[in-house]
Amino acid sequence: MSDANVVYVGNKPVMNYVLACVTQLNQGAEEIIVKARGRAISRAVDVAEILKNRFMTSVEVKNIKISTEQINTAEGGQANVSAIEIALTNKAAPKNKK
Amino acid sequence: MSDANVVYVGNKPVMNYVLACVTQLNQGAEEIIVKARGRAISRAVDVAEILKNRFMTSVEVKNIKISTEQINTAEGGQANVSAIEIALTNKAAPKNKK
Repeated sequence: MSDANVVYVGNKPVMNYVLACVTQLNQGAEEIIVKARGRAISRAVDVAEILKNRFMTSVEVKNIKISTEQINTAEGGQANVSAIEIALTNKAAPKNKK
Repeated sequence: MSDANVVYVGNKPVMNYVLACVTQLNQGAEEIIVKARGRAISRAVDVAEILKNRFMTSVEVKNIKISTEQINTAEGGQANVSAIEIALTNKAAPKNKK
């Protein structure tokens, strides 16, 4: 899979990420991937749900993966953190745009 | 799908839910579903990841669904909340148990 259209969800308001998704889809992306780690996972699910239910009803969830990533802590140790990847496809992607 | 083996994840410590899953799987369940809403979604992903990586490596993620549920607020209104369902299968389910 190309690593093109990824939206990383962090601690900003949900709508910021929804708009980032809408922008990418309106630029012709047929598929985007919403990624998040740790506490932001809930927000990533919110982003996907708000996007497809309220803004772009042609968007569907294609696949969801969960995983565990190792991150370096401030103290120099390592910690495990859960991560999610939500692949969304736009059934009505504009074919005439590049 | 039967509504048999569901573990609802809420605000308790993650390990409580991991142990609930381990108990159900050790009783012979071949499939369990970890459900959560709102902020607890991140914790549900933690539960699935800790379970399969640390406690029962024979467990695999079979399917993940996300959805939006309507809940009644304390003020009598309605609010939307995201939800997740993580279906986990135990490849080494004990066939000799009922």
